[in-house]
Amino acid sequence: MSITGQLLIGQSTVRGQNGEIWGIEAATGDRLSPPFGGATLDDLETACALADAAFDTYRETSLHDRAQFLETIANNILALGDELVERCMSETGLPRARIEGERARTVGQLSLFAGVVREGSFLEARIDPALPDRTPLARADIRLRNIAIGPVAVFGASNFPLAFSVAGGDTASALAAGCPVIVKAHSAHPGTAELVGQAIQKAVRDCNMPEGVFSLIFDSGRTVGQNLVADHRIKAVGFTGSRGGGVALMNIAAAREEPIPVYAEMSSINPVILLPHALAERSPEIAKLFVGSLTLGAGQFCTNPGLVLALHSPVLEAFERAASAALDTSSAATMLTPGIYRSYCEGVEQLALHPSVELIGKGQPGTALQGQAALFATTSEAFLADRALREEVFGAASLIVRCPDEAALLKVLTSLEGQLTIAVHTSAEDHHALGRLLPTLEKKAGRVLLNGFGTGVEVCHAMVHGGPFPATSDTRTTSVGSLAINRFLRPVSYQDFPQSVLPSALKDSNPSGIPQRINGVIRP
Amino acid sequence: MSITGQLLIGQSTVRGQNGEIWGIEAATGDRLSPPFGGATLDDLETACALADAAFDTYRETSLHDRAQFLETIANNILALGDELVERCMSETGLPRARIEGERARTVGQLSLFAGVVREGSFLEARIDPALPDRTPLARADIRLRNIAIGPVAVFGASNFPLAFSVAGGDTASALAAGCPVIVKAHSAHPGTAELVGQAIQKAVRDCNMPEGVFSLIFDSGRTVGQNLVADHRIKAVGFTGSRGGGVALMNIAAAREEPIPVYAEMSSINPVILLPHALAERSPEIAKLFVGSLTLGAGQFCTNPGLVLALHSPVLEAFERAASAALDTSSAATMLTPGIYRSYCEGVEQLALHPSVELIGKGQPGTALQGQAALFATTSEAFLADRALREEVFGAASLIVRCPDEAALLKVLTSLEGQLTIAVHTSAEDHHALGRLLPTLEKKAGRVLLNGFGTGVEVCHAMVHGGPFPATSDTRTTSVGSLAINRFLRPVSYQDFPQSVLPSALKDSNPSGIPQRINGVIRP
Repeated sequence: MSITGQLLIGQSTVRGQNGEIWGIEAATGDRLSPPFGGATLDDLETACALADAAFDTYRETSLHDRAQFLETIANNILALGDELVERCMSETGLPRARIEGERARTVGQLSLFAGVVREGSFLEARIDPALPDRTPLARADIRLRNIAIGPVAVFGASNFPLAFSVAGGDTASALAAGCPVIVKAHSAHPGTAELVGQAIQKAVRDCNMPEGVFSLIFDSGRTVGQNLVADHRIKAVGFTGSRGGGVALMNIAAAREEPIPVYAEMSSINPVILLPHALAERSPEIAKLFVGSLTLGAGQFCTNPGLVLALHSPVLEAFERAASAALDTSSAATMLTPGIYRSYCEGVEQLALHPSVELIGKGQPGTALQGQAALFATTSEAFLADRALREEVFGAASLIVRCPDEAALLKVLTSLEGQLTIAVHTSAEDHHALGRLLPTLEKKAGRVLLNGFGTGVEVCHAMVHGGPFPATSDTRTTSVGSLAINRFLRPVSYQDFPQSVLPSALKDSNPSGIPQRINGVIRP
Repeated sequence: MSITGQLLIGQSTVRGQNGEIWGIEAATGDRLSPPFGGATLDDLETACALADAAFDTYRETSLHDRAQFLETIANNILALGDELVERCMSETGLPRARIEGERARTVGQLSLFAGVVREGSFLEARIDPALPDRTPLARADIRLRNIAIGPVAVFGASNFPLAFSVAGGDTASALAAGCPVIVKAHSAHPGTAELVGQAIQKAVRDCNMPEGVFSLIFDSGRTVGQNLVADHRIKAVGFTGSRGGGVALMNIAAAREEPIPVYAEMSSINPVILLPHALAERSPEIAKLFVGSLTLGAGQFCTNPGLVLALHSPVLEAFERAASAALDTSSAATMLTPGIYRSYCEGVEQLALHPSVELIGKGQPGTALQGQAALFATTSEAFLADRALREEVFGAASLIVRCPDEAALLKVLTSLEGQLTIAVHTSAEDHHALGRLLPTLEKKAGRVLLNGFGTGVEVCHAMVHGGPFPATSDTRTTSVGSLAINRFLRPVSYQDFPQSVLPSALKDSNPSGIPQRINGVIRP
């Protein structure tokens, strides 16, 4: 494979004629060849028409064939080898180990969904057989299965150039559900996007799938992406990025003649609550792990710990001193894009200049475009008085909120918007306090974790990477883990169908051996 | 119990001071005593505060206690006896057998959800145990369960004064999920609403539930209902009614600081497709059953067959003659409200005056406020040319669209918006044609049924009473059947929780014996 700068529209490659997008070397800000041509509205039309044409065939592929397709995508990504890793390192400034780890995660995610497809629970097959003798009225034969919702638009994230991008969680779960996917590539890593796109395009060919199952477009502005969400053939949207961007797509989707679901994962400051006995027992260890989580990947994780809540006390002061010491030796790191670097510096400066905010510690300074970690502190009173302090600073910055008592801590927690994660550090003696906080934690976050940090999102069956707005636009869902497939499904009932016409999942003979719920009881 | 005209706010009864609502005798248009006082914004504030206060306790009630609560509501509704039936008949004009049948359905629905609660699958319990020895990184212990989404606002329907109203499907599924409910009573049956509300209020007391679990408010205008949807403590909305009403609530919910899901079931014309061999074999029988479905309950069902699609042919003409003959003898019936009667007459008149529409037959005329059934026909060409012909006429009116060939029929089908149901009449020789249509049928409707009609919605595990917009606002859901509970749930992950702190559903000991998915495999 090689990077050409072309759009991938079904099985075609097309030179976009609508402006140029350049990959940027994250460490230097220099342009990387070649330039990428932006899609025109005609290119978009072709991609949408192909996706629509592919939908009915693709959604009825056998579970076996669809699972194999997902595995072929995974293999084709691995086959890109070092070309992918190196381009991705250049475009993002992330180190090799991280990129290789993220590639493993991306591939593992595709395999997980292949397993989910084969197992078949996602079809939610339900059979309520006819009751012809029931009085006063007979019951018809009624069966239900989930079908794919329709073609899906995916907007990748800048901060996970593989795992939340072209072949990331949204694409993998949508393809698993039976939905064709059109990806709008993130302009922060266009070369990475094209390479991965080529791997998917080849898998479509390798597996004889209808070509419209996948297209990849570049957008030199915002018009093409907005038109993608507005297109009547698109039936759902996956997005990972800023709150402003996500809300803009939500508004477009809601204003359509047929409104459609948008799964936007947007903004989270991921509070960390340090309970008193845990702090008394082990503030130095917690501080060290906290700084590790804060500075991981230059702090550019959706689950980065941007807020620390604790009771104001000598043990908290010990934590602050230990965190400050750990920061002293923490290296600066190249940020994903010059724009993200500038926003980070502005966010840090605003905190530094805030009259009620105190600087606790800073990381090592770096070269141009490298983010320097920063830790601040304020009081719960000041925090509650100024909404600006609740806003996410994307990068390795965090704010400690010193609370006079548990009631104040709960008030701060209650004042927060929805979160992806909340971490609580506890010892056994803190469990009563944890019990008092838990109902609020559950209402505020998609994942509550003890004695750890939210960074490092396991791709598994029990993961929720979601949460109330604005963590996501749809608190009923997760964008990581096997449950993510549910976002791209809708139930359909079939009444009084003869066996020969029923979809395979609903036949009495159950040829794929999937779990069926018969009269309300699961038969696996 | 007796009808007092008061609001039910938690365990209190309150005289609303914001205008008056009167029950109306459907058959005469006369007022029924007593008047109902409209809620003020202060009343609403009290109801929301109580619901919010009840939420954390109610959502953690044991499955056993919650199921018993639902069953107690059912028993208390039955205990209202004839007072409920007679008031409901007066307010709606519906006959005794229908009201008694609907009461049985309402009670059955509550029992179904009691069973769903006891069974526990709705909790979606998932356990991915820790893998401390995994390389390169250990895996944490991660567990997931669904929790209730929060207090829910329910807007009942005029056409199902019991089954889609105060204790109807939305309320039953929200309570089953663990959500407190605030019902805005439909002004078409305020006395029925109050009686059923009293039955729920008493069940809250009987079962020692927190009082905020249920409130019932009357609204003399629209402000209180709109403020209910906008209130920050409300986390989801159930609505059954007009497209305009549903879209208005969707817009309010989307404009909130925290947008919330709205489950609005709005508008459907429920196409009936008559395939050629079925018509050739049995047009007279189909015509008779069609007229029966069309005129059932004065045609006031969401699933009323408002559109018939067939190939223009002598067998269709035979169907039209037979339907016209059946209509000749079909009685007029009192409609739910004078307003609904007037809208129906206007809709019928517009069809009658349409230059491309032909009258096929009419039912018997009736007295004032009784709807007279009407059947029209047009061509696929005319139908495609005028969007007005696709609009729902709520009542016993239907339009036959004569198509020159299968391609034209498919074009008409494709031009339609989302539907609750599509019925297809087939014989074995039509199965190839059915196969060609099926992908489109699935994309257009929540339920596809063969050789029957959509009226009569079974409350069971495999039912989908839903469909693409505008049939509903959320095609991923159903408002009837056990799957309806999913609308009021959201998943939460718990990471590295000790057994003692884990919610019961996620403990290794599984004290409630619910299905748990362990490492991706269900253990029932």
